[in-house]
Amino acid sequence: MSQLLATFCALPDDVLTELKNNDTNVVAFNDLTPEDYANVTIMLGWDAKIGNAILNAPSSKLQWIQTHSAGVDYLPYDKILAKNITVTNASGVHAEQISQSVIGDILYFSRGLNVHTTNTANKVWDDQTGNTYVLSDFKVLILGTGSIGVELAKNLHALHVTVSGINHSGRAIDGFDKTYAIADYANAVKEADIIVNILPGTEETRNFFNSEFFKHIDNLFMFINVGRGFSVENTALVQAVNDKKIRYVALDVTNPEPLPKDNILWSIPEVLITSHTTGQSYDYNLRLVRIFQQNLPSYFKDGSFIRNVVNLNKGY
Amino acid sequence: MSQLLATFCALPDDVLTELKNNDTNVVAFNDLTPEDYANVTIMLGWDAKIGNAILNAPSSKLQWIQTHSAGVDYLPYDKILAKNITVTNASGVHAEQISQSVIGDILYFSRGLNVHTTNTANKVWDDQTGNTYVLSDFKVLILGTGSIGVELAKNLHALHVTVSGINHSGRAIDGFDKTYAIADYANAVKEADIIVNILPGTEETRNFFNSEFFKHIDNLFMFINVGRGFSVENTALVQAVNDKKIRYVALDVTNPEPLPKDNILWSIPEVLITSHTTGQSYDYNLRLVRIFQQNLPSYFKDGSFIRNVVNLNKGY
Repeated sequence: MSQLLATFCALPDDVLTELKNNDTNVVAFNDLTPEDYANVTIMLGWDAKIGNAILNAPSSKLQWIQTHSAGVDYLPYDKILAKNITVTNASGVHAEQISQSVIGDILYFSRGLNVHTTNTANKVWDDQTGNTYVLSDFKVLILGTGSIGVELAKNLHALHVTVSGINHSGRAIDGFDKTYAIADYANAVKEADIIVNILPGTEETRNFFNSEFFKHIDNLFMFINVGRGFSVENTALVQAVNDKKIRYVALDVTNPEPLPKDNILWSIPEVLITSHTTGQSYDYNLRLVRIFQQNLPSYFKDGSFIRNVVNLNKGY
Repeated sequence: MSQLLATFCALPDDVLTELKNNDTNVVAFNDLTPEDYANVTIMLGWDAKIGNAILNAPSSKLQWIQTHSAGVDYLPYDKILAKNITVTNASGVHAEQISQSVIGDILYFSRGLNVHTTNTANKVWDDQTGNTYVLSDFKVLILGTGSIGVELAKNLHALHVTVSGINHSGRAIDGFDKTYAIADYANAVKEADIIVNILPGTEETRNFFNSEFFKHIDNLFMFINVGRGFSVENTALVQAVNDKKIRYVALDVTNPEPLPKDNILWSIPEVLITSHTTGQSYDYNLRLVRIFQQNLPSYFKDGSFIRNVVNLNKGY
């Protein structure tokens, strides 16, 4: 019995039993010794130091990396592709959390909570703050129509919002009133009051939100980024806010992360920064393990996977 | 042409035309003279000083008061009943606003925005704040199953929440998974993680949330009051928070209003106060006028009303 699963989190008993029944021992990342590296067949979670040590171990048996995130752009693609290792991601585990964080961001500004949290701290009763909005006042454009985008679109729909989406080809997606191809983004953003980015981090999306993009924006209520920080050119975004083209901004991801204390984004009152936490929940790890677990039977049977396999050539 | 409509807000042209075609002139509250009082047949909005002057005018012709609020407990019931004046309220105009403010309150605390707004102000990047929740982690109990309660129940349902309701008789209401009679509240609150009060202000609901009520509470994530402030006994609520029976509180209404600066509720970090604004929206008055307008044809035809008539003996 020489197979090892190296994990970043504790596993529930039923998963431990299933692994044991398939001759796989479980070792926490922190308990791994250099002698273990070559015998790790599965990594649950990623740690750059440990991961590279395992990948570089002579006669490494690594077959499968289950990441704890949906985006996998931090992985060493070349090595993983060269060794024909399967990567599965956490796609689906974040949908509820991120969708609800985005709705929370929108309601925070549209229902005036930004004013009332300050008023509460200052013990100020001000009931003349009525310039607030309901969600049906807005048209929302979501860039990215994967599991998070679909969940968000359906949630917003139930709250009477018209929702458009952008994906690579512009193909129609259940839950969206309308979809555009990314090449046609200029037409899509024209109609939007709120733009939400959930696109994965790829070369195509790097600096996508640059000064050219913001040329097409006018009178946007909100810009929200829950995709990847490097999709946004900070100076172009700040300029758009200064030019009053965008009223409020919520950034879960920034460029770089952590965002340095002297970055101007911290100092703009209309910018809310949530420090890459919108995907979290108190039971996140268990949710992730339940997705991971769905691939175990086929993996142990014939090395195949039924969900969440990443195409590293595309990056998602 | 001696009929007058006294109004607190501007009216759109089509409503002005409809009134004029029925021999009714429009006067703003601020422009009313004492000579006008007896000729006012309709009050759109309520102002205690002007309203009482109109009611007390010798041979007052007042027939109809359209309030700008859903709750009407501030009106002088006795005088209005004695003169057989019809009161219509703003029920329905607030449903989207209040429902979305309540969801915003819940997401503010459950998605950790309370932490991240402070962190943003302090330029702190902290991504280890993961003890957050999604809405499906909660069972929500709504006291009050009128138009606001139904909208909120349906919205929460779409966000994967199990929703119970309380009304007078316990009758089933579309949109609620379960309903309880108010007399049976002790059983209802046992199963709830979040309690939302939307009950109208009546003698039955005065001090309803008192120490006896909070005896039945344990480990509540949130208590939200968007009904009436005098339904809550402040000391009992504060005690429940101090006893860790309630984690977070959002109060749109307080007892009294405005809440005095020295009231302890301002000083509890887990309490958010929104100063009676959750029903507001930038186009509130227009929404109200559109409800008012629906009664104009029948009123001018035969003095009858098709919606929003208040039973002053019940208070709603």
